[in-house]
Amino acid sequence: MSFKFEILKKSKKSRARVGRITTDRGIINTPIFMPVGTQATVKTMTPDALKEIGAEIILSNTYHLLLRPGPELIKEAGGLHKFMNWDKPILTDSGGFQIYSLAHMRKITDKGVEFTSHIDGKKHFLTPESVLDIQAAYGSDISMVLDECVELPSDRKTVEKAVRRTTEWARKSKIQNQKSKQGTLFGIVQGGCYPELRKRSAEEIAELDFAGNAIGGLSVGESQREMFDMIEVVNEILPEDKPRYLMGVGFPEDIKGAVERGCDMFDCVIPTRLARHGTFLTDEGRLSIRQTRFERDFTPLDTTCDCYACRNFTKAYIRHIFWAREILAMQLLTHHNLRYYMRTMEKIRNEISG
Amino acid sequence: MSFKFEILKKSKKSRARVGRITTDRGIINTPIFMPVGTQATVKTMTPDALKEIGAEIILSNTYHLLLRPGPELIKEAGGLHKFMNWDKPILTDSGGFQIYSLAHMRKITDKGVEFTSHIDGKKHFLTPESVLDIQAAYGSDISMVLDECVELPSDRKTVEKAVRRTTEWARKSKIQNQKSKQGTLFGIVQGGCYPELRKRSAEEIAELDFAGNAIGGLSVGESQREMFDMIEVVNEILPEDKPRYLMGVGFPEDIKGAVERGCDMFDCVIPTRLARHGTFLTDEGRLSIRQTRFERDFTPLDTTCDCYACRNFTKAYIRHIFWAREILAMQLLTHHNLRYYMRTMEKIRNEISG
Repeated sequence: MSFKFEILKKSKKSRARVGRITTDRGIINTPIFMPVGTQATVKTMTPDALKEIGAEIILSNTYHLLLRPGPELIKEAGGLHKFMNWDKPILTDSGGFQIYSLAHMRKITDKGVEFTSHIDGKKHFLTPESVLDIQAAYGSDISMVLDECVELPSDRKTVEKAVRRTTEWARKSKIQNQKSKQGTLFGIVQGGCYPELRKRSAEEIAELDFAGNAIGGLSVGESQREMFDMIEVVNEILPEDKPRYLMGVGFPEDIKGAVERGCDMFDCVIPTRLARHGTFLTDEGRLSIRQTRFERDFTPLDTTCDCYACRNFTKAYIRHIFWAREILAMQLLTHHNLRYYMRTMEKIRNEISG
Repeated sequence: MSFKFEILKKSKKSRARVGRITTDRGIINTPIFMPVGTQATVKTMTPDALKEIGAEIILSNTYHLLLRPGPELIKEAGGLHKFMNWDKPILTDSGGFQIYSLAHMRKITDKGVEFTSHIDGKKHFLTPESVLDIQAAYGSDISMVLDECVELPSDRKTVEKAVRRTTEWARKSKIQNQKSKQGTLFGIVQGGCYPELRKRSAEEIAELDFAGNAIGGLSVGESQREMFDMIEVVNEILPEDKPRYLMGVGFPEDIKGAVERGCDMFDCVIPTRLARHGTFLTDEGRLSIRQTRFERDFTPLDTTCDCYACRNFTKAYIRHIFWAREILAMQLLTHHNLRYYMRTMEKIRNEISG
């Protein structure tokens, strides 16, 4: 699988850059937002709808698909793309974050991590090598290394240990990736909110020369200031000529700040999750369709938006079907919120391009 | 609003006929199935998706829309079509059936029916005249008269009383409709499972010369045999040159039998409701996507189907997202089941045309 990253334009005002990733399954214009398709579907969105909002790549979760339906079944289906009928690129995470946030009875050793499924209590054991095999079975366009995440706040010693293990696992992943030629692999930087640990982690990961580098373990409760500080420390070290992926971030204002600090790729469940709870995004901020003031508002969610929901429906209608607990309300709000994110990224790219 | 019904072909083997209804908002090919959009949305389906499955008319429920968001709001929105972004014909029922099946504390007099909302306990009073005003506020292409439904089984006296009141209300509706010129109005025949009462009701309703005639109060627990018997009694009397609408029916096999007995229009929540519970329809019968035998079935729901779900996804995938409680599973199964109904109607029309 081919993977090429080019920088097309650098901002004069910040570390922001506009770039282009070329893969066998299509071009990804960076800075890019990747809608999250946890269980092999971006909640409420058909693949056609995803293309309509302008998605160029989606993210799917190795952990969830491992538990259900399992990599063997997905492989038998012809890979994740064919299984879910999505022919553009897919990035899969390694499951590291989900193991720490969802799985039960984790036992971590240098060899890997043992845990029981949060769905059926079944035992699983994952190693840096096996998560690559799993992602290869999915047919991911971009795979992620297994990393060790820690809770925030954690004491320095705990975080240091996690950084050490993350680097060791990254090294094993790199070796396996070179041997197996399973495709494009990204490393992950950890280090909590300790600048020196972030620095060390970034140096060790950068040295391993992955196709791209990710910053993990942020957006887990720290302040935006702390997050930006960590990004600055890390991006000082991560190579300029490779894409930088800030995992699990965030609100549009977080993304903007991270782009200015040199990040290129983002994913987050916020736009889809907010939509299912009735919240929609506009340049004026987050609004709830539940509100009485929208009862007779016969204008679109956002008059500046070109999405299917805004082109065809009013707030009054979406509010009505939302209160009537109709699924279409979630579909329309999801469509709008994802399109809002894609438009935000378009604007960011245009601003950098000048 | 114009309304024209033409019979294009009559079956030589049965009372079945192929016809065409012409309205200001488009042509309806009969026998037709009308997807149900109870709360101003056919559950999980966008208007685009409805057009894709070939829907030529949908049904919406006067009772539900009366309680929420109310006819005033819908009128303010520019009518139901504009509110829900559906530009083809809409038939609205009168709410009669829902008042009897959903509302609380009903009190029926010759003047009308008083009840409290099943949503918020608010009191409402509907008359034969007011339900026409409500449907006019919606901008319905086809309105239905208020009728009195009775539980099955009910004693002859109760049913006889309901037939008498249904006729009286139909007469009032006809007068109001002629005065107000609010558009196309259908009468409704009642009479439970008593052939003589069905006969009497059909004669009285037929005499009032509505644009079309409906058969109500069936598919409420009686056997298919009883239902067919009642349809035969009624359709012997209802005029040939007007469409006959069998309300709330039913499974494909019920519809086929009713078409052979001279019915032209149908609506039912079965295809959409079954879909949300994981059941999909095929010529081999009803199947559940939950079943283990579909776990590794990489063929479409129905190899003969041309719907979006069957063109793009496998049973294995839909089963996976159904068990993962993903909304997309309900969307895809609804799409398929409605398309199955539309294809069934196409086949029925082709068979009659010979």
